[in-house]
Amino acid sequence: MTRRVYLTQRPWEELQSLFVARIRESARLGVEVIPTTEALGRITAEALRARISSPHYHASAMDGYAVRSEMTFGASESNPVVLPKAEAIPVNTGYPLPKGKDAVVMIEDVHETDEGYVIIKAVAPWENVRPVGEDIVLGEMVLPQHHRITPVDLGALLASGILRVPVFARPRVGFIPSGSEIIDITRNPDKVELAPGEIVEFNSQVITGMLHEWGCTSKVYPVVPDEPDLIKQALLEAIAENDLVIINAGSSAGSKDFTADVIEELGELLAHGAAIKPGKPVILGMVQGVGVVGLPGYPVSAIVAAEIFIKAAVGALQNWEPPSSPKIKATLTKKLVSAPGAEEFVRVRVGQVGDKVMATPIARGAGLIMSMVKADGMVRVPRLSQGYASGETVEVELFCTPEEVADTVLLAGSHDLVLDELDSFLRGYGSRTRLSIASIGSLGGILALAKGEAHLAGAHLLDPDSGEYNWPFIRRYLRNVPVKVFNLVYRMQGFIVPPGNPKNITGFEDYARADVTIVNRQRGAGTRILLDSKLAELGIDPTAVKGYDREEYTHTGVAVAVSAGVADVGLGIKAAATALGLDFIPVAEERYDLIVPCEFLETPKVQRVLQALQDPAFREFIATIPGYDPRQMGEELDDPERS
Amino acid sequence: MTRRVYLTQRPWEELQSLFVARIRESARLGVEVIPTTEALGRITAEALRARISSPHYHASAMDGYAVRSEMTFGASESNPVVLPKAEAIPVNTGYPLPKGKDAVVMIEDVHETDEGYVIIKAVAPWENVRPVGEDIVLGEMVLPQHHRITPVDLGALLASGILRVPVFARPRVGFIPSGSEIIDITRNPDKVELAPGEIVEFNSQVITGMLHEWGCTSKVYPVVPDEPDLIKQALLEAIAENDLVIINAGSSAGSKDFTADVIEELGELLAHGAAIKPGKPVILGMVQGVGVVGLPGYPVSAIVAAEIFIKAAVGALQNWEPPSSPKIKATLTKKLVSAPGAEEFVRVRVGQVGDKVMATPIARGAGLIMSMVKADGMVRVPRLSQGYASGETVEVELFCTPEEVADTVLLAGSHDLVLDELDSFLRGYGSRTRLSIASIGSLGGILALAKGEAHLAGAHLLDPDSGEYNWPFIRRYLRNVPVKVFNLVYRMQGFIVPPGNPKNITGFEDYARADVTIVNRQRGAGTRILLDSKLAELGIDPTAVKGYDREEYTHTGVAVAVSAGVADVGLGIKAAATALGLDFIPVAEERYDLIVPCEFLETPKVQRVLQALQDPAFREFIATIPGYDPRQMGEELDDPERS
Repeated sequence: MTRRVYLTQRPWEELQSLFVARIRESARLGVEVIPTTEALGRITAEALRARISSPHYHASAMDGYAVRSEMTFGASESNPVVLPKAEAIPVNTGYPLPKGKDAVVMIEDVHETDEGYVIIKAVAPWENVRPVGEDIVLGEMVLPQHHRITPVDLGALLASGILRVPVFARPRVGFIPSGSEIIDITRNPDKVELAPGEIVEFNSQVITGMLHEWGCTSKVYPVVPDEPDLIKQALLEAIAENDLVIINAGSSAGSKDFTADVIEELGELLAHGAAIKPGKPVILGMVQGVGVVGLPGYPVSAIVAAEIFIKAAVGALQNWEPPSSPKIKATLTKKLVSAPGAEEFVRVRVGQVGDKVMATPIARGAGLIMSMVKADGMVRVPRLSQGYASGETVEVELFCTPEEVADTVLLAGSHDLVLDELDSFLRGYGSRTRLSIASIGSLGGILALAKGEAHLAGAHLLDPDSGEYNWPFIRRYLRNVPVKVFNLVYRMQGFIVPPGNPKNITGFEDYARADVTIVNRQRGAGTRILLDSKLAELGIDPTAVKGYDREEYTHTGVAVAVSAGVADVGLGIKAAATALGLDFIPVAEERYDLIVPCEFLETPKVQRVLQALQDPAFREFIATIPGYDPRQMGEELDDPERS
Repeated sequence: MTRRVYLTQRPWEELQSLFVARIRESARLGVEVIPTTEALGRITAEALRARISSPHYHASAMDGYAVRSEMTFGASESNPVVLPKAEAIPVNTGYPLPKGKDAVVMIEDVHETDEGYVIIKAVAPWENVRPVGEDIVLGEMVLPQHHRITPVDLGALLASGILRVPVFARPRVGFIPSGSEIIDITRNPDKVELAPGEIVEFNSQVITGMLHEWGCTSKVYPVVPDEPDLIKQALLEAIAENDLVIINAGSSAGSKDFTADVIEELGELLAHGAAIKPGKPVILGMVQGVGVVGLPGYPVSAIVAAEIFIKAAVGALQNWEPPSSPKIKATLTKKLVSAPGAEEFVRVRVGQVGDKVMATPIARGAGLIMSMVKADGMVRVPRLSQGYASGETVEVELFCTPEEVADTVLLAGSHDLVLDELDSFLRGYGSRTRLSIASIGSLGGILALAKGEAHLAGAHLLDPDSGEYNWPFIRRYLRNVPVKVFNLVYRMQGFIVPPGNPKNITGFEDYARADVTIVNRQRGAGTRILLDSKLAELGIDPTAVKGYDREEYTHTGVAVAVSAGVADVGLGIKAAATALGLDFIPVAEERYDLIVPCEFLETPKVQRVLQALQDPAFREFIATIPGYDPRQMGEELDDPERS
């Protein structure tokens, strides 16, 4: 197949309008008439008008006695009126008003005696009566067209005698995964051993999950290899069965990317490439009156492109706009640089400390699905902007609710897997409280407390002079922030080396060897400070250490670098080595503490965190993780200079 | 059965905590292990850890050529490096890095020649490579426990080799409708003719719809008559099959309200009555370790009580809190009086004019399901408060999103059914724009424009002196607000009378008769002004007209009053008479206009409204409604004093 189309970059707003307009012209959803009891969440295909009034008879609004109101006029506690039994008929709420009566006296205002009913409160005509049509009048419009039916609407429909409703058929969306290297592990559930080059297909599940939330049904087709004829055949099959078709991927301009050419051949290619990042290599087309979207292969690219183009398309099909995310204003905690030319969608963590809502940009790789899982929202950097300065206010489209943001405990500092476990454990308490972890190193955490940007800091900072953990740094950087310190855990640090320790690393003196390349942690990380103090002890000049400048932000990052062969050794925790099948040579046990400003100590959410640390179930679980010792977990530690 | 329990009124917060604590103690949901592909929206029962890394091999991050990076050092456009074919292996995105290679040069930086590959840009070690575990590392926690699985999470689970997930079983909730007068029309779909006293059961659908949104499954049991033994039997059957049981109603203290006594007999009655309004007669209990909630019969009471107690209970069962409504600050457009003693939940319409978000309380009857359908949100008046003054800022829990509020056109003024039709028609345009109608009379609408509280006013105000419609009032009240006026419709006003016109009403002179009682419209309504001018013409003293002080706010209210026998006649539109099977005697055709401040004229949402008025489809539809004439619909009208 000759390449005939090239990737360009046009503003997404323009492409979205074009695509939506074409879909409105071409596509018409069918209408189904379904029982009202099955209509929750469906979109009305026409305005619905009441077939009966509600109430459909004059009904008592209270438990009491139906009377002719004029017979009660003047009645009061001091001047009761006695009615003969025939003139006060007992009625419960909802009973029809008996003929000849025009009001209801409440049960507590009537006493039965032998002479009749003693009425101690007068009623006006039609008092405590619900007249016909009080709620809904025959013929009244109960719901407009193109309205998504809510639980409350179901009640109004049934009350007005509407037992069947015409609704739009759900848009049917077909998803064709393509790529010769793609493995559908859901069809091979025992295949966990994958060969290099085999890529697990999961975009279909992410995108069809989104489609489900937008009111669509979906069908995932078998994986199609990168062959133009097979793609063509799969596309035509899907077009015959659906209102919209997605092909993923083959949307770029590589030697095996045929999607755009196939669409161009079968129908009309509206666009190849949009000015969005990630998501640039998206394809929009129409084939036989059906919209076709080619989504990029990287998951975050696919999600961003789907949010922009597919959401609008299925909204147009239903003539109903799926709700958008809640938005919140937040202050950026660090600089956000973006290349002009495309609107960039940057994932952020969002946290609220006091009244201050803060957004911290996280990893930006389009291939990182975990960056979406960990993100609380997205910031858009407009096409012509170069980004934002630290401290600027930005608008965040939230993936959660503002209440969830307010219930989050922000922990800044050194990364440790016990923090992930703590977050998970907390959720067992049934509150919305969760832990959001900003991995910015131990010192970074302490500085975040000083700036009022976190509720807790996690630190394992050894002061080489005193041999003390954390306190010297607290005294220096948190002079004006009264804090309490609680131990989280003791953990083993050591050398992470390839299996079999091929370079035979046994101590920090090996860092000086010419044949050893290391990987380092970032400045301010407790592990970095540990390394620097050890090198200083041994009199090794850091500039002579190969790889000293390659910085990673997490233990896992260090282990990945060793696993990838970039480095021969890195300092880190055992769990990171184990996860990647690497060897671990213990060096030193260190203390990891949580630092809590007194200002936040009594808030319920921080109290829940401290409660978890006291919980025997949590402590017992952490004790099972190799390299961890929870012997002082949750204990408050005193400043040795003050005690 | 002897009554043993009495209705009391305790703060809801206290009762909610008590109930939730008891449910946590007693109930445990089962855990199901289900395919990840079916897990959208389910709650994780434990933390989930990656079974494989992603990528699980070192992968090319680009389409390009895999190289040994050191062989490219120094390469640039002016100083290219030529590599033999064996030293540059073509790779697409996702391909495994060939053995011995440590970087990828992007395709656009390589040119193929006969001598080999010409590299015009150097790469660093591991550049354009995704190392093992870059996204997810084996053993890493992918999701915590008690987490609701989103579409993005599905991707992360599959990418990390987690093909089956342990999730909590959905809470099973049983719903028992009770009451001898209750008719399940869904089981009698052809029964639209109801006898007086037969009440259509719809609370089951409203409440199970809410339960569905809170992650539960539900079962609606057959209607149980008001017999203690039958209620007992139904309750025990439902308890055996569910994690929570709802009985509706019989929760009050009337002679046929047995729910509380039955619960007391079978288990433990925790509460009968809560300090909420509506919703006071709610019942909470535990029977055989299963929570039981007795909901009040009035739909709004049932909904409020369910939001407070059932939502918390099913949250506790799942150890997961269903998301709460978005909140918005709004200014009250009128006074809101509330009796202290109970927290009152007041339905409001919410609209935004410019930056100003306004909330207008609407009908408060607990029996009015349409008041929930028409509401945009709810304002809470705390237990000890007597309410709020007009102009106070309140917090609204929205039933829609803030974006929907911003997209709403607020129309204040006289009620007409063409406005409901206009709202429905607008939604066919596929935007989120909708019309929110505040029925406050023609003059009220004009005054709302003067205060900046509406985008449009709808008015049919006849000036008796000049015989002109609307303009004299605009000149008087909107002196400082430049406006345009567009005709909506001409419509027939007339006398709404009982079938057969028993009092033989033929003209306004009949209003003076001693045997005629009328129903009136509120001060400021166009219809009221029409009546007053006719009475003045005839020299009839309004104080001599029986029923002149009985005011209704809509044409429908007038028709309901006539239908109920409260009045012999009322002035109104034909459609209202027809809906209630009443007779109609035409009196005068009148002009109904829309008044638009120039300030809002060019906003897209107001433009959409004007577009609909020009739409032949809309005009043709309105022409089919008896009593309406759209001959000038959408035409701009000039001020006769200026033209």
